[in-house]
Amino acid sequence: MAILVVGSIGIDLLETPFGRAEDVLGGAASHFCAAASFYDTVDMVGVVGTDFPQAYLDYFRSRGADIDGIQVVEGQTFRWGGRYHLDMNTRDTLYTELGVFADFHPTVPESYRSAPIAFLANIHPSLQNEVLEQATGAYLTVLDSMNLWISTTRPELDEVISKIDVLLMSEEEARQYAGTPGLVTAAHKILEGGPRMVVIKQGSYGALLFSKDGSFFAAPAYPLEDVRDPTGAGDAFAGGFIGYLARAYHEHGEFTAVDFKRALIHGNIMGSFHCEDFGLNRLKTLTPDEITTRYREFLNFTHFDPDWVNGTE
Amino acid sequence: MAILVVGSIGIDLLETPFGRAEDVLGGAASHFCAAASFYDTVDMVGVVGTDFPQAYLDYFRSRGADIDGIQVVEGQTFRWGGRYHLDMNTRDTLYTELGVFADFHPTVPESYRSAPIAFLANIHPSLQNEVLEQATGAYLTVLDSMNLWISTTRPELDEVISKIDVLLMSEEEARQYAGTPGLVTAAHKILEGGPRMVVIKQGSYGALLFSKDGSFFAAPAYPLEDVRDPTGAGDAFAGGFIGYLARAYHEHGEFTAVDFKRALIHGNIMGSFHCEDFGLNRLKTLTPDEITTRYREFLNFTHFDPDWVNGTE
Repeated sequence: MAILVVGSIGIDLLETPFGRAEDVLGGAASHFCAAASFYDTVDMVGVVGTDFPQAYLDYFRSRGADIDGIQVVEGQTFRWGGRYHLDMNTRDTLYTELGVFADFHPTVPESYRSAPIAFLANIHPSLQNEVLEQATGAYLTVLDSMNLWISTTRPELDEVISKIDVLLMSEEEARQYAGTPGLVTAAHKILEGGPRMVVIKQGSYGALLFSKDGSFFAAPAYPLEDVRDPTGAGDAFAGGFIGYLARAYHEHGEFTAVDFKRALIHGNIMGSFHCEDFGLNRLKTLTPDEITTRYREFLNFTHFDPDWVNGTE
Repeated sequence: MAILVVGSIGIDLLETPFGRAEDVLGGAASHFCAAASFYDTVDMVGVVGTDFPQAYLDYFRSRGADIDGIQVVEGQTFRWGGRYHLDMNTRDTLYTELGVFADFHPTVPESYRSAPIAFLANIHPSLQNEVLEQATGAYLTVLDSMNLWISTTRPELDEVISKIDVLLMSEEEARQYAGTPGLVTAAHKILEGGPRMVVIKQGSYGALLFSKDGSFFAAPAYPLEDVRDPTGAGDAFAGGFIGYLARAYHEHGEFTAVDFKRALIHGNIMGSFHCEDFGLNRLKTLTPDEITTRYREFLNFTHFDPDWVNGTE
């Protein structure tokens, strides 16, 4: 019982108005693992070069993750550098060096194939398709993507989106993918393409969940005083969202509508913690009690009617 | 027992990608009255010219409003024309003709002075100060403003803000007024200036409520498929927010923390209805049942934990 994740593992350079951090552990799968590991075991699939620090592999292990699916290949690990502007909403990519990631083909170890939930983090949609064919035991599949694949590899992206259960997209990506400025219309168009649900990530405004059955849920963001580094916040969001679902699946072997609502809240919780410090620093010191406290805060700043009873309204 | 409102009453020209409407009833006080009148009696203070259509005065009366405080002055009514861009988020002002509004000094009729709630809609802060001196019976005062007054009449604006209970601001205005990009920091700075609460309006993202006692509430927006005309949505929001508070005040003679939370939801409800059609068209056909239905929808798309009990978490 675990969560299978496939995605980038890299070494980042981060520059924000609050400071600079060099050679920090990065990549979508790393951010995801850091967050999801608070909820369940993470089975990691990815690739690193021979330059990848042993300390970072040890970090994944310390989080209880299985790293048998991380290939170590002769060459340089994926490296990315980014610089955030004063408003923290826009950033420049300083460099992207694919290294061993350029020729990556994911192999899902036999022992991972029974994982009930699979997260296909943002990588080339063809690779996501390859993983889907191997993740035969997945009860729920969740996919993330990016603007690059929407504009350059649309057929492959459409194909993989038609096969998965839950699609995660930023609101800009949803508008671009659906070709319409209206977010509600965009969500409905996306759902016609296959997935049961689409989660629209709105950064500092929270997240929305649209389902094929017509239901809708909105989770506002946690009111953060300072955002120090938003890199990977979307993957930490996915970690909280999927992590909570994995826990619910353990408990009752399926997902209820309220599980998905709470999962969206946990996505926002982990995304908000993640932004509080550089790289994975905040998640490294985070405790389960802090997650519980923030969940209670969410309850209090979103609920306004104690007469609400799930399912009866 | 009523709500006192002071603000512009005008005749608008509206152009959006969805159509055009000429000579429609507009102005902050009109939009506010249309929404708030679903909850309580509205006592209107404003000025119109001798060209103002009798039908529009009749409309106010049909909504149960008291219009003794509307001065009819020789000259032209305030006129405004606006054109929305394709994304509906930006608009150009085509013209602003102040007319009789230029020399307006509000006089609050004796019979209005016992109104327990006063709404100072967006007008020159000096006029808002004049109203505050006359609204001696107000248990709660709420103020709206705009970017123009922040940049041109800051001392007068600071003065009136120091005296009121609840300040309504768009997020751009809050950042501008507080001089900081961080919204949470901006809200706290604003609260230092006097008001007990500040409501940050975020348009299609909903609204936030920050209180001096440290509490916080977030209301997501209603997921509208089509926004046909957002003109006056902020005033309709104020109408739902203040209208609900007036109703709560009638019921228990004070405001609880949960009253303010639900008021924020009702603000979003009325703001969302208002955007569904041009001018006041949607509010003209709106029924109390539709408000109740939308409230239930809000419950279902914001609540995720039936164990929440107000005040115990």
